[in-house]
Amino acid sequence: MDDEFAFIDSVTPTGTKQEGLVVGIGDDAAMYQATEGFNQVICVDTMVEGIHFRKDTLTPYQIGRKVLAINLSDIAAMGAIPRYFVVSIAVPSTWNEEELQEIYRGMNELAERYNVDLIGGDTVSTNSALVLTITTTGEVEQGKMLLRSVAKPGDIVFLTGEVGGSAAGLDLLNKRGLEGPYTEEEMTLVKIHQEPKPQIEAGRILAEIKERVALNDVSDGVASEANELATASQVTIEIDAQCLPGQLTTSYKTREQALEWALFGGEDFQLIGTTSETAFPKLVQLFKEKGIRLTAIGKVYEGKPEVWLKDRNKKGKLDRKGYNHFQKR
Amino acid sequence: MDDEFAFIDSVTPTGTKQEGLVVGIGDDAAMYQATEGFNQVICVDTMVEGIHFRKDTLTPYQIGRKVLAINLSDIAAMGAIPRYFVVSIAVPSTWNEEELQEIYRGMNELAERYNVDLIGGDTVSTNSALVLTITTTGEVEQGKMLLRSVAKPGDIVFLTGEVGGSAAGLDLLNKRGLEGPYTEEEMTLVKIHQEPKPQIEAGRILAEIKERVALNDVSDGVASEANELATASQVTIEIDAQCLPGQLTTSYKTREQALEWALFGGEDFQLIGTTSETAFPKLVQLFKEKGIRLTAIGKVYEGKPEVWLKDRNKKGKLDRKGYNHFQKR
Repeated sequence: MDDEFAFIDSVTPTGTKQEGLVVGIGDDAAMYQATEGFNQVICVDTMVEGIHFRKDTLTPYQIGRKVLAINLSDIAAMGAIPRYFVVSIAVPSTWNEEELQEIYRGMNELAERYNVDLIGGDTVSTNSALVLTITTTGEVEQGKMLLRSVAKPGDIVFLTGEVGGSAAGLDLLNKRGLEGPYTEEEMTLVKIHQEPKPQIEAGRILAEIKERVALNDVSDGVASEANELATASQVTIEIDAQCLPGQLTTSYKTREQALEWALFGGEDFQLIGTTSETAFPKLVQLFKEKGIRLTAIGKVYEGKPEVWLKDRNKKGKLDRKGYNHFQKR
Repeated sequence: MDDEFAFIDSVTPTGTKQEGLVVGIGDDAAMYQATEGFNQVICVDTMVEGIHFRKDTLTPYQIGRKVLAINLSDIAAMGAIPRYFVVSIAVPSTWNEEELQEIYRGMNELAERYNVDLIGGDTVSTNSALVLTITTTGEVEQGKMLLRSVAKPGDIVFLTGEVGGSAAGLDLLNKRGLEGPYTEEEMTLVKIHQEPKPQIEAGRILAEIKERVALNDVSDGVASEANELATASQVTIEIDAQCLPGQLTTSYKTREQALEWALFGGEDFQLIGTTSETAFPKLVQLFKEKGIRLTAIGKVYEGKPEVWLKDRNKKGKLDRKGYNHFQKR
């Protein structure tokens, strides 16, 4: 709505590479063509300076990149193909033009990687924190959308990639800031926090197989997301701590700390889901072909919508426990 | 992303009235079906507390309502039918739950009026100003999207409704606040500022007639929007001040002030456009049938992309001149 960031206009509409796209001449409106036989998916995510990021934990490039990654993770959790996105940014005068362009560079780089086009936006000024909102649209074949509500007793609980790395990275960043110093191993954790990868390919494998799959993305930690699956599907889920894929025994942290981060840390943006015992080996094979790690971390039982954690000889109820960055915990 | 505003979850997904809609179980993702033969339109608008509104010029109800109205106005300017919207809201602790619910009530009331469904959102906390972002999707018949770039020499320049009322209303609000007191005539102006109406029906009439129409919505004032039409179409536009529909001679303001508000005030959210001299009478008839005011306010000439204002015996070049609420002017 404002005119102060006119340079953004030239940054904004990148998108003409996908067929059928017409960028509308309106400031804030764009047009595109839906694919026949597909449903449309839409999701929105917002990050606020001082709440979800600070300049001393993420560079402007990483801020842009991360908001889009979070948003694409929602698309991945539905098994959809991301198509287009629009950006709204409220910018205080404490941010300069170069930093803003870095935010866009971060978004554009990830957008290119996943072939999703920036087709519009609204840039306004604010007297306070920078607020960045991205809305992404995607498409998924009719009848193939993945839901949380279809887990069944007997299912295997699976997880893509590793968890706990983002929280470990944030812990490091809170202690030592952007500049570190960090060992190579520590830098891996820091990068997991700063530059998460949305599991689009994994979501697509799960959408394309002809099997029943319940799915969720790990934005708030395995404990929280498993509880959501249990509630949505009205089943009991048991997770085996020994099976949780993560760097549980690195030199950086104790096993207890690593397990807490894996369960409650969040922002790993992996996918957690369930499928039948007969379908699971098929999944393992497909993921192996694509070079994506897939791990069985538990089982689904008939019972109350609860999550239980088994760790060697101990067993206890695993509550939701969110994770709220700088504010809570 | 946060859990603090859990009550919003129950407010958020209203939408099941439109066929083909499936609200996704994901927090931030929803699914819907595109209509065959239609293109998809998307637009995003953001309003920031202290920049675009203050608690002493708009009630929470009006804030929610107005952001959606602004967003729907973009849809109207493309001749599209609005379908779904998602909401992102960054809320500081200075706003209470009741006020937030009022924001949603304002959105929902307008959404119901235009049959557009709230299908998702992201509610986060912030330490500073409230930021409200709405992204709306719409649909327009393939080949029918209205653009700014198709005005031709000889065209009539037309305008829906009246202009200048919003700026007059804001002026009153700045002087006397939400509580007034206001005369009935003044209250009309205040309401135009607080509760603008997106010209969806007008946009649809213009999309459905089989005529060439260039179109823009009046978010930044007639001068600015006419300049955009002139630039996009590479034509000269001449506007006749005598023809500008607005309350030019009310007791509240001088003619000069009224004219300035009409030209530069903005936020009227009417539609300004051009069509051929032969098509114009057809338009007048169609608008009359729907009870929407339509006025010829100027003409299009061959020439440089400029806008000229004719006022009785005077004539001068009319520059863009934006309007930036509380910050500028």
